[in-house]
Amino acid sequence: MLTEFELIRRYFSFAAPGVALGVGDDAALLELSAGAQLVAATDMLVCDRHFSRGADPFKLGHKALAVNLSDMAAMGATPRWALIALALPQVEEAWLEAFSAGFIALARAHEVALVGGDTTRGPLNICVQILGEVPINMALRRDGAKTGDEIWVSGTLGEAALALAHTQSLLALDPGEAERCISALDMPTPRIALGKALRGIAHSAIDISDGLVADLGHILESSRLAAVIEFARLPTSPAMRRLLPNEAAIKALLAGGDDYELCFTAARSDHTRIAALGCELELVLTCIGWIEKGAGLTLLDTTGKPMPVEVTGFDHFR
Amino acid sequence: MLTEFELIRRYFSFAAPGVALGVGDDAALLELSAGAQLVAATDMLVCDRHFSRGADPFKLGHKALAVNLSDMAAMGATPRWALIALALPQVEEAWLEAFSAGFIALARAHEVALVGGDTTRGPLNICVQILGEVPINMALRRDGAKTGDEIWVSGTLGEAALALAHTQSLLALDPGEAERCISALDMPTPRIALGKALRGIAHSAIDISDGLVADLGHILESSRLAAVIEFARLPTSPAMRRLLPNEAAIKALLAGGDDYELCFTAARSDHTRIAALGCELELVLTCIGWIEKGAGLTLLDTTGKPMPVEVTGFDHFR
Repeated sequence: MLTEFELIRRYFSFAAPGVALGVGDDAALLELSAGAQLVAATDMLVCDRHFSRGADPFKLGHKALAVNLSDMAAMGATPRWALIALALPQVEEAWLEAFSAGFIALARAHEVALVGGDTTRGPLNICVQILGEVPINMALRRDGAKTGDEIWVSGTLGEAALALAHTQSLLALDPGEAERCISALDMPTPRIALGKALRGIAHSAIDISDGLVADLGHILESSRLAAVIEFARLPTSPAMRRLLPNEAAIKALLAGGDDYELCFTAARSDHTRIAALGCELELVLTCIGWIEKGAGLTLLDTTGKPMPVEVTGFDHFR
Repeated sequence: MLTEFELIRRYFSFAAPGVALGVGDDAALLELSAGAQLVAATDMLVCDRHFSRGADPFKLGHKALAVNLSDMAAMGATPRWALIALALPQVEEAWLEAFSAGFIALARAHEVALVGGDTTRGPLNICVQILGEVPINMALRRDGAKTGDEIWVSGTLGEAALALAHTQSLLALDPGEAERCISALDMPTPRIALGKALRGIAHSAIDISDGLVADLGHILESSRLAAVIEFARLPTSPAMRRLLPNEAAIKALLAGGDDYELCFTAARSDHTRIAALGCELELVLTCIGWIEKGAGLTLLDTTGKPMPVEVTGFDHFR
């Protein structure tokens, strides 16, 4: 049987720059760039809650890191280092090999070093900590939105939620649609390059992990402002357009979790600059509404009339 | 029902210096001291593995942070910030109140700010990440032991393991002994002040979480050296002395986990300085042996003869 140390060494060790001391001591020793603030977050994925028992371990390794990288993207931070704590019912080498391959492939793509961790027996639980850096006072926060800001989102919304609704038979996707949506759910792309490019441009930002309404709601609460969103401007995939105005599809679009796109606000005067940024990054950036004085979110239908917002974001304890 | 955000705000938010942005955004923004290296570690505690289902939540909150602080102590680091990811079967407010009180009491005592986290439903799992700092090149590592170094340990060894053996009826403690040993198991004291005081003195250090033999073994492996330990010099509590040479007591002394004392090596010429340090910190520091060329650990009995070392440290996957 592998010992804990062998397990970490065999599956999770790889060389990376910027690490004074990595896996194998009581803690890692890391060097922040001059003039940078440290950015730290953690996300825990639990079996039967965030993924099913039979989930593909390579994709799971990718997702465990991706959701943490997405937090760095939302802060405009450069991810640098990750730690991983794993509770495993048993040591299955094939599972670990595939899981670590998925994790490490994404880590390498973003030059993130795995510098520490912990392994133990227990119900399957994956807890990743991500550490990054951002030039002082350049982080994208939730509390910086300003009256008159435009509201933007990256990519398309609701595909991950459509995949989930499809697997739960709440709606039916074509095979091609299902493939694309399930891929969005299983292998989200953290918008690191966008987050970094938005430094000095976006006034506020968040990643959409709990659904647009809930996550934009966090920006509004933190910034103590209101927002107006035009439903028709929400960026949709072909599958979403085919299914709308199916109720489950509307819910996926407005309150679907696991998208990991960025929602951000910026001055109207930066509209062209942001549109150009989308072209540069080959990423669709869509202006979906604006920030106003007040509180709460108003959703306008195609005729300009307010729609009832009953759908709220996913909350793990509701 | 509490939402995730309310849960974090209600139980885990408290003001602390050195935090540019704490709980409530996608990530925390933190400022490292000038000339410092970042030190990062994580430890996961799983129900039925590291603690029993009915464990006192206040003590559990203390321990979840203490085991992480102990990693900082072992590096000679100053702990600064913690993040906590919690999987909970259900939200029990009384449990959370006591758990967070235990966690926060220890955090405050060490001026550690809780700056982020994640909560989700799932089998009870507590994953804490600790971030600290240490002046560049001053960290205590496992790989720095030198031939001729003396080997030291803080406190007494094996009390936590005696408590465990007592609850498993492998041996019998008196009520007074049981109380003291169970307290050592449930409420370990991280040796932060000692770790910091050993900067520039100790050549290597580790915290004893898996037992003396296993953890000193890590120093020997990393430093590619051997060690000799004199059994009679091992620092023991009255309970341990009463029970020796009971086999379970010997095992607790040599291979008992959860002590969270420091084991470190330093030049013989620093012997008096280290002894004085013990007085200053009101912490027993005991010289138990020395480092030699070679590999492996030799344990000498009272007659100076090598004892067989069959006992190995606790490994979570053995």
